[in-house]
Amino acid sequence: MNKNDLLYDVVRHVDVTGFDARPLMRSYADMAFQARNLAAASKITNKMLADTDCAVILTLAGSLCSAGLKDAIALMIENNMVDAIVSTGANIVDQDFFEALGFRHYKGSPGIDDNALRELGIDRIYDTFIDEDELRVCDMTIAEIAGTMVPGAYSSRDFIRLMGAWLDEKGVKADHSIVHAAYKKGVPIFCPAFSDCSAGFGLVHHQWNNKQYVPIDSVADFRELTQIKLDVQETGIFMIGGGVPKNFTQDVVVATDILGEEQPMHKYAIQITVADERDGALSGSTLKEACSWGKVNTMYEQMVFCEATLALPLIVSDAWHRGEWKDRREMRLNRLFRERVQA
Amino acid sequence: MNKNDLLYDVVRHVDVTGFDARPLMRSYADMAFQARNLAAASKITNKMLADTDCAVILTLAGSLCSAGLKDAIALMIENNMVDAIVSTGANIVDQDFFEALGFRHYKGSPGIDDNALRELGIDRIYDTFIDEDELRVCDMTIAEIAGTMVPGAYSSRDFIRLMGAWLDEKGVKADHSIVHAAYKKGVPIFCPAFSDCSAGFGLVHHQWNNKQYVPIDSVADFRELTQIKLDVQETGIFMIGGGVPKNFTQDVVVATDILGEEQPMHKYAIQITVADERDGALSGSTLKEACSWGKVNTMYEQMVFCEATLALPLIVSDAWHRGEWKDRREMRLNRLFRERVQA
Amino acid sequence: MNKNDLLYDVVRHVDVTGFDARPLMRSYADMAFQARNLAAASKITNKMLADTDCAVILTLAGSLCSAGLKDAIALMIENNMVDAIVSTGANIVDQDFFEALGFRHYKGSPGIDDNALRELGIDRIYDTFIDEDELRVCDMTIAEIAGTMVPGAYSSRDFIRLMGAWLDEKGVKADHSIVHAAYKKGVPIFCPAFSDCSAGFGLVHHQWNNKQYVPIDSVADFRELTQIKLDVQETGIFMIGGGVPKNFTQDVVVATDILGEEQPMHKYAIQITVADERDGALSGSTLKEACSWGKVNTMYEQMVFCEATLALPLIVSDAWHRGEWKDRREMRLNRLFRERVQA
Amino acid sequence: MNKNDLLYDVVRHVDVTGFDARPLMRSYADMAFQARNLAAASKITNKMLADTDCAVILTLAGSLCSAGLKDAIALMIENNMVDAIVSTGANIVDQDFFEALGFRHYKGSPGIDDNALRELGIDRIYDTFIDEDELRVCDMTIAEIAGTMVPGAYSSRDFIRLMGAWLDEKGVKADHSIVHAAYKKGVPIFCPAFSDCSAGFGLVHHQWNNKQYVPIDSVADFRELTQIKLDVQETGIFMIGGGVPKNFTQDVVVATDILGEEQPMHKYAIQITVADERDGALSGSTLKEACSWGKVNTMYEQMVFCEATLALPLIVSDAWHRGEWKDRREMRLNRLFRERVQA
Repeated sequence: MNKNDLLYDVVRHVDVTGFDARPLMRSYADMAFQARNLAAASKITNKMLADTDCAVILTLAGSLCSAGLKDAIALMIENNMVDAIVSTGANIVDQDFFEALGFRHYKGSPGIDDNALRELGIDRIYDTFIDEDELRVCDMTIAEIAGTMVPGAYSSRDFIRLMGAWLDEKGVKADHSIVHAAYKKGVPIFCPAFSDCSAGFGLVHHQWNNKQYVPIDSVADFRELTQIKLDVQETGIFMIGGGVPKNFTQDVVVATDILGEEQPMHKYAIQITVADERDGALSGSTLKEACSWGKVNTMYEQMVFCEATLALPLIVSDAWHRGEWKDRREMRLNRLFRERVQA
Repeated sequence: MNKNDLLYDVVRHVDVTGFDARPLMRSYADMAFQARNLAAASKITNKMLADTDCAVILTLAGSLCSAGLKDAIALMIENNMVDAIVSTGANIVDQDFFEALGFRHYKGSPGIDDNALRELGIDRIYDTFIDEDELRVCDMTIAEIAGTMVPGAYSSRDFIRLMGAWLDEKGVKADHSIVHAAYKKGVPIFCPAFSDCSAGFGLVHHQWNNKQYVPIDSVADFRELTQIKLDVQETGIFMIGGGVPKNFTQDVVVATDILGEEQPMHKYAIQITVADERDGALSGSTLKEACSWGKVNTMYEQMVFCEATLALPLIVSDAWHRGEWKDRREMRLNRLFRERVQA
Repeated sequence: MNKNDLLYDVVRHVDVTGFDARPLMRSYADMAFQARNLAAASKITNKMLADTDCAVILTLAGSLCSAGLKDAIALMIENNMVDAIVSTGANIVDQDFFEALGFRHYKGSPGIDDNALRELGIDRIYDTFIDEDELRVCDMTIAEIAGTMVPGAYSSRDFIRLMGAWLDEKGVKADHSIVHAAYKKGVPIFCPAFSDCSAGFGLVHHQWNNKQYVPIDSVADFRELTQIKLDVQETGIFMIGGGVPKNFTQDVVVATDILGEEQPMHKYAIQITVADERDGALSGSTLKEACSWGKVNTMYEQMVFCEATLALPLIVSDAWHRGEWKDRREMRLNRLFRERVQA
Repeated sequence: MNKNDLLYDVVRHVDVTGFDARPLMRSYADMAFQARNLAAASKITNKMLADTDCAVILTLAGSLCSAGLKDAIALMIENNMVDAIVSTGANIVDQDFFEALGFRHYKGSPGIDDNALRELGIDRIYDTFIDEDELRVCDMTIAEIAGTMVPGAYSSRDFIRLMGAWLDEKGVKADHSIVHAAYKKGVPIFCPAFSDCSAGFGLVHHQWNNKQYVPIDSVADFRELTQIKLDVQETGIFMIGGGVPKNFTQDVVVATDILGEEQPMHKYAIQITVADERDGALSGSTLKEACSWGKVNTMYEQMVFCEATLALPLIVSDAWHRGEWKDRREMRLNRLFRERVQA
C-alpha cells in the first residue's frame, strides 16, 4: 500500500444552490424533535438576515471545511449573509487556506490502522485523509507570510486579512475560499486560539528563527470584536459547534459592559451541535443559560442537535433560496481597524 | 389555560414525494462524517430494494409516527419497499392506529410545567402533546377488538392484522395508516413487546374483565418471523432506532440455525440511530459486532448517527425518486400464516 | 488463534460490600453536574428503602449482568432492597441464568475482526466475549424447562420462577444468581419481551417441535404487574437504562386507572442512563415528562447521566452500607399469583 | 426572591485523600465497558507517574473547578503528579483564581428561569450559580495585575505566573489554588485562548484604557510548550475534556519536528470525555487517530467516556493512595523561561 492508493478520492464541497431545501424545511417545521428544531433555527436565520441593521457573526468549530462545508460558508460571505467570523484555527488555516493553496482532502475510512497511516505520512480526521507533506507546505507558507510582516503585535484578524491579501496576489487554487472571500468583502475573521493549528506551526518556526518577530495578541482579538459590537450594536450569532468561538462571541456583550458602554444582548442566536448540557461544558450549554449571563436574548434562540455536515447544507440552502439576504449590504467591518501592511 | 389552548397546532406528516432528496444525497456522498454515512446507507438501501429476491424488514423504535414520519413509512409499505415490520408497540398502536381513529398529535414545547399538563389531561413526548382522553379511546378500541376474537393465543402479528381489518371495515380517518396499508398489502407487523403500549392497556382491561380471553404469545412472534426467514431466505434490514425491534430481527438468523435449517445472515443492514456503542447496550452496538454473532453480513452495512426525523425523510425520498423499488412485487408474507378470524 | 486464546480472562462481578462508597457519595453531593445528580439519586434511593410500605421495582436494560453487575443486583434481592424486577430478557436469561449454569463472560476488546470471531464461534458485546456453544446450551436448557411444563399460557414471570426452581434443584454454579435469589425471596421478575433473548431461541425450538406447547402471554405480564401495584399501592422505581422495562413499569400506574382502581403515581424514581431527551425516545425522556402522563411524581425523581458499570456499584454500595434497607421485610410478591407447576 | 436566597449553598471541592478508590478501581478492572476503561486509564496513569523521566502534562477543558474538582487538581500539582498544565481560561481565571480571591460557587438548579437570574445578577453553569458582581471583581483584578506589568508581549504562562505571585503576596482565600500551587512548584500553566475568559475582560479593559499595554502572545505559548518538550523529551498527557487544550498539547510533538529537532510522540495518553468521534471534531477524536498525525503513541492510551466530576475523583484518589508519584521530583519547568517581572 502506498500513499497514492489512499489519497485519490477527493472530498467535494456541497453546492447549496444545486438543490432547494425550502420544501423539506417546510415539512420539517410541521414535524417534531430535531426536524422541527432545525426548521425553527432556519426561520430565525432568515429573520436575522432580513434584519439589515443586525450584524451576523458566524462561529465555526469542528472539522467543517475538511468535511465539504467550505463552499457553503464562502457563499454566505460572498452574499453578505455574514459580517464577522470567529473560528477555530483549523477551519481557517489547515483546511480553507490549505485548499486555497491547491491541496485537497481525501475520502478515507475510520476503520484503518493508524500506525500504517503514520508510516505513509497520512493524517486522519475520522473518515478523511490528508497528505502530511502538503500540510507542512501550509505551515511554512504561514511562516513565510509572517516573515514579510513589520514586527509588532497583530491580532489574528490582522494576520488572516494578510493571508487573504497573499492569496489575492498569488491566486486562489480552489473554487471558493473563506479566507479570500472575507478579504474581498472586508469581513473580519478571528481565531482566538490562533496558535492551535497549522498557523501555530508556521508562527513558532517564524519566532524560533527570527530575533524580531510577530506576536499574535489574543487580547487584541477580543478588543477588536468588542469594537465591532460597539459599532454595529445589534448582532445575531450563527453558531456551528461550540468551543472557544461560541464562548468568545457570546462574551463580547459583557465586554461592552466592562468598558462602560453596554450594548444589547445578541438578538438572534442559533447553534448546530451534537453536545448537550449534561456535563456543564460551554459547548453544549443552552442559549437560555447564556441569558443568565446577559449574553443572549431568549426571544429568538434555537439549538439544533445534529451533526453539522447534515444540517448546515439544509439551513444555508433554505436561506439562499429564500433570499432574505438580498437587501443586506456589505458591512466591511474590517474598515474599523487600521490596515496593517506587509514590510 | 385550558386544553384547547395547547392542542391546536397539528403535527403533519412529511410527504417524501414533495421534494427530491437525490441531489442532496449526491452531495452528501462526496462530503464526510454523517453526511457521507447517510449517503452510504442510502446507497445500500437502493441496492437492497433492487435485489427483488431479498425481503426487506423494517424495524421501528422511538416515537416516529407521532413525529411526522408515519406517511413516509406507509409509503414504503404501499410501494413494496417493505416486506415485514418489527416495531415497538407505541409506533403501531398509540400513534399510527391512534391517528387512523381520527386523533392527532399536536406541536408543543419541552419547556413546560408537566404538573400543569397532567392537570389538563395532556401527555407530552418531548415537544409533542397528546390528548389523554383520546388515548383512552384508543386503548378501549383495542379491548373492543380483543372482545370480538375467538379466545386462544395469538401472535402480535395476528392481532395487528385484525386491527387492520377493523380499520378497513370502519374506515381510516387519516391520509395514510401503517396498520391499514400493511393489512392491504399482506405485510406482517410484529410488536415483540406488544403489551408495552396502548394495546397493553386495552388487553389488560380485556383479560381483567373476561374469563375466556386472548393471550398474546410473544414466542409465536419469534416463531413466525423465523418462518418468514426460512421462506424468503435472503433478507435485508432497514432499522430506525435500536431496542427490542433491532435485537429481535437480528436474532432471527440464529433461530433458523437452532431449528437446524440455517439461513444466510442478513445481507444488507442499515441503522439510523443516536445511540453509540460505548455503554455496551444493543441499541448502539455496531453492525460489525452483529457479525460476530452470525447475524449481519459486513459487506453491505452502514450506521448513520442522526436523529430519525432529520434522516428518514431524506433516505426515503431518495429511494422513492430513484425508483429501484419499481420492480419489486408484493411478497404478502402474511400468506405464510393461517388466518385468524374474529368470532 | 483459537478459541481458548481469547476466552480465558473472566469478567468478575463487583462486590459492593468490599468498599464503602459513602464518603465518596458525600463528596459528590457537594459538587456539581453528574456527581451531584448521582448523590441526589443515591439520597432518593435511601429514602425509598427506608419507606418500608413502598415496594421497590428495579428495571434493567443494557448488558448489565455480562458486565460485572450481576452480584450487585443479586445482593439487592437478597437484602430486600428490591420487591419486583422488570428486565430485558438478555440480562435474565443469556447472562444471569447462563452464569448460573456455570458459564462465564470473558474480557475481550472492541478493536477486533468480527469475521474472525464468527469463525471461532465467539460472540462479542463491545469489549466482552462469549462462547457461542455455551450460549446454545443455555438456549436448549430453556427448551428443556419448557418441555416439563403443563401446556397453557404462562407469563414470563411464571416461566422465570420455574427457571429459579430448576436452578434450585440442579444447583447454582455461580456465587450469586438473580433468577435464583428472586426465586428464593419470592421476588417476581418480568421480561415483557421474553422471546427477545436466549429464551426466545429455546422457546421457538420448543414450540416448533411440540404440538402441545407453552405460549408466553405478554399481556399476563402487564396484568400481573398491575395486580402488584393494586396490592402494594406505594411504589418506587430504580431504573438502570431505559427501553421496554422503563416504559412498561411507568405504565402500570395508568393501567390501574384503566381498570377503575386508580393508584398513586410512582412516589420515587431514579434512572441511570446515557440516553437523553433530544430524540424524543422513551429511554431518555425525563421523569418530569412522565409526570404529564400521570406516571411519576416529580417530588422525588432524579436522572443520572452515566454509564451503569460506573454508577451502579457506587449507588448500591452506598445504600448497602447506609443500611436503610435493614427494616425492610420480604414482600414475596410472587405470593399474589397462583403457583404454576411443572408437569 | 433575592440574590441571597439563591447564593447560600456552596460547592465544596472533593478531597481525594478522604476516601480510597483503590478497591473500587480493582473491581472496575475486572468488569466491562467504561468501568474497565476507567481502570485501564488509571493503570496507565500510575505507570506514567512511576516513569520519573516522563513529564506529565495535564489538560483541562469544561467547567471543572466550579464543579468541585479544583482541590483534586491542586493536589496533583502539590505532589509532583503534574509538570505542566494546558487549560481553558475559565478553569484558571474565572474559577480557580476567582475562588482564591475568596469568592465561591453555589449549588443551583438547571430548571430555573434564566431571565430572572439575569435580573438578579446571577450567572448559571448548568446547576451552579455565580455572583456576577464577584466575577466583575475578578475581571478587574486581572486588569490591575496587567497594569503593574512592564509593557511588552507576554505568554499566557508568563501572565499566570504573575497571577500566582500576586496571590502569594496578597494571600490565598481558599484551601487550595491551582494558580498558586503551580506558582510555588514552578509548574507552567498555559491558556492558549487566554482572552476567552474573565482574563479577557480584564485585559480588554487594560488595553482599552492604556496607551502602553500588555499583549498576550499566543504563539509564545506554543513556542514555550515546544521548548518544554525539547527539554524533557518524554511526555505523557492526562486529558480532562478535549477542546483547544487537547489539540494544542498533542500538536507540540509535531512542532519539534517543524523546528528540525523531532521528539518522541507522547508516550502515555488518557482522556476523560463525553464526546465521541462521530462528528469528526477533535474533542472526541480517538487517541489512535492522533497516532496517524504522529502525536500519540498507541502503546499506552485509553479513552474513558464519562463525565469528569464522576471519574476524576476516582482516578486521582487511586493514584494518590497507590503512591507511584512518591519518587517524582519537582521538574520546575518554569525555570526554562526568563522570569518576567512586574514594574
